[in-house]
Amino acid sequence: MLSEFSLIDRFFARRAAARPSDAADGTLGIGDDCALLAPRAGEMLAISTDMLVEGRHFFADIDPEALGHKTLAVNLSDLAAMGARPQAFTLAFSLPNADEAWLAAFSEGLFALAERYGCELIGGDTTGGPLNLCVTVFGSVPPQAALRRDAAQPGDDIWISGMLGDARAGLGVQRGEWCADASDAATFRRALERPEPRVALGLALRGIAHAALDLSDGLAGDLLHILERSRMRATVEVDAVPRSAALRRLTPEIQRRCTLAGGDDYELCFTAPATARAAVEAAGREVGVPVSRIGTISALQAAHDRPAIDWRDAAGAPLTLTLQGFDHFHAD
Amino acid sequence: MLSEFSLIDRFFARRAAARPSDAADGTLGIGDDCALLAPRAGEMLAISTDMLVEGRHFFADIDPEALGHKTLAVNLSDLAAMGARPQAFTLAFSLPNADEAWLAAFSEGLFALAERYGCELIGGDTTGGPLNLCVTVFGSVPPQAALRRDAAQPGDDIWISGMLGDARAGLGVQRGEWCADASDAATFRRALERPEPRVALGLALRGIAHAALDLSDGLAGDLLHILERSRMRATVEVDAVPRSAALRRLTPEIQRRCTLAGGDDYELCFTAPATARAAVEAAGREVGVPVSRIGTISALQAAHDRPAIDWRDAAGAPLTLTLQGFDHFHAD
Repeated sequence: MLSEFSLIDRFFARRAAARPSDAADGTLGIGDDCALLAPRAGEMLAISTDMLVEGRHFFADIDPEALGHKTLAVNLSDLAAMGARPQAFTLAFSLPNADEAWLAAFSEGLFALAERYGCELIGGDTTGGPLNLCVTVFGSVPPQAALRRDAAQPGDDIWISGMLGDARAGLGVQRGEWCADASDAATFRRALERPEPRVALGLALRGIAHAALDLSDGLAGDLLHILERSRMRATVEVDAVPRSAALRRLTPEIQRRCTLAGGDDYELCFTAPATARAAVEAAGREVGVPVSRIGTISALQAAHDRPAIDWRDAAGAPLTLTLQGFDHFHAD
Repeated sequence: MLSEFSLIDRFFARRAAARPSDAADGTLGIGDDCALLAPRAGEMLAISTDMLVEGRHFFADIDPEALGHKTLAVNLSDLAAMGARPQAFTLAFSLPNADEAWLAAFSEGLFALAERYGCELIGGDTTGGPLNLCVTVFGSVPPQAALRRDAAQPGDDIWISGMLGDARAGLGVQRGEWCADASDAATFRRALERPEPRVALGLALRGIAHAALDLSDGLAGDLLHILERSRMRATVEVDAVPRSAALRRLTPEIQRRCTLAGGDDYELCFTAPATARAAVEAAGREVGVPVSRIGTISALQAAHDRPAIDWRDAAGAPLTLTLQGFDHFHAD
């Protein structure tokens, strides 16, 4: 529990303790062996956990305020992909040393995002060790409204929120794989360090979208998760995948690599029936997030047919792409 | 999510997937952006998270099967201390490399304990990096029956389950701080590596105990958490603190250090009214765990009085002890 370490207490438990420990609803936060939490009446808790490791998910020199933001953002993104309303989170982390300025900035980034979504810190653990951040996040969702990966239907459109590839482009700039001018580099870096979880869009898509997930490992690999769980195929028009003006200034080959196999986008990829096109566009407008239609879902054609993505160019001609998802364990 | 890494998939997702992903109760496990979970009707989820780091919480040469056990055990211990019934857990971990034999043994230790308590793996995350294990555990408890830290009352007895100090004695043997014969060393090592969470006792104490916590950082520091949250004092008879025959073969000074400031005990410390003595003893017998009465709770005596522990010898004479809790960040 957070009380093990007074400096961390100061930055974390204090803000967490804004919730009274014996609120009328029976919830209990920091300071006991467990927190007590319940979903809204008739709903279930949506739960996801993500671990961020220095050198794998962020560089050692990342702005700690941005790291605080990203640590929670990638977890809120999982709630968004489920259509769940954020409710609470736990934070466990190991730190090589307790640097006050670093902790102040990290906690500022974390709580600024948490408070924006009404998501309260209810428990945690801190220890010494190589820098490692593990958040478990809790949202509330009516089970029948949850946006699951296994719910895609033949004929569904495939949609993407926002724009893909900027985060991967930023990683490439930092690694020296390619160059960009200062303004574009700043755009890419912001996408990499400060992803915006599409929580409002996920909520707006309840009852409209069929299947959904958030893009963390690249469109090619992540869309396949929907296809595998739903036992479907997809046709995707590569040039319809939305990308920023900054990304369009890199070569077409880099654009494709970043948008299709980039990773760290934290945009939603979802399917919805063609009859819901106006509703999807209205949901996007309502929450101020652009939504783009990039392809369609189709049934498997025979017993030996397997879930897969058929890539097409703007003229509808097939493209053969060799793309690898973003595998934190092998590459980076 | 676990599917990022096929070897890990094999050892973890497969056993987790024993739960159907669309069970009749609406729960959803591994394979989507979030798991869906609800407490039992009328109850709340008790949630706790613990992070274990190599070199801090275990030695690099620990038997991986024991490590799998301990990783979940320390979390189940938090549920036990709340009187909550285990339900599910998530596991996030970083590993420097994917050694098949290590993963097989680790997952065996983890699932053997999980299955014993009907506690299902519902989600996770895996990544490369220095060895770090983070579990978040979920139990179900009626909120009014939860064993909270702030519920101690004047006149309550203070009780301890099992025996204290063996784990710390085992750490001392491994560090060369003191010696023990092979049989005692094995007793100590087992206590250190394979703590048994007192889940059944926690459930049996619902409606009997007032306040409770689990001892992870040593009695002196942990009991103080109850006192601070309850605004009480305690008197503890040092020689009444239960210890093993093996520990009694070490010097009285080492015994005291291990039992009072040892850490890693994962026994329950709880308070109950004196009228409940027979009920507490019956609860202990019912679940086969010895319980020992070691002291009493008293009210603060004046406005400036602060929560504290008064240590006494067997004759009731005051003892002045300088004890430090087990602080993972500074020592060990």
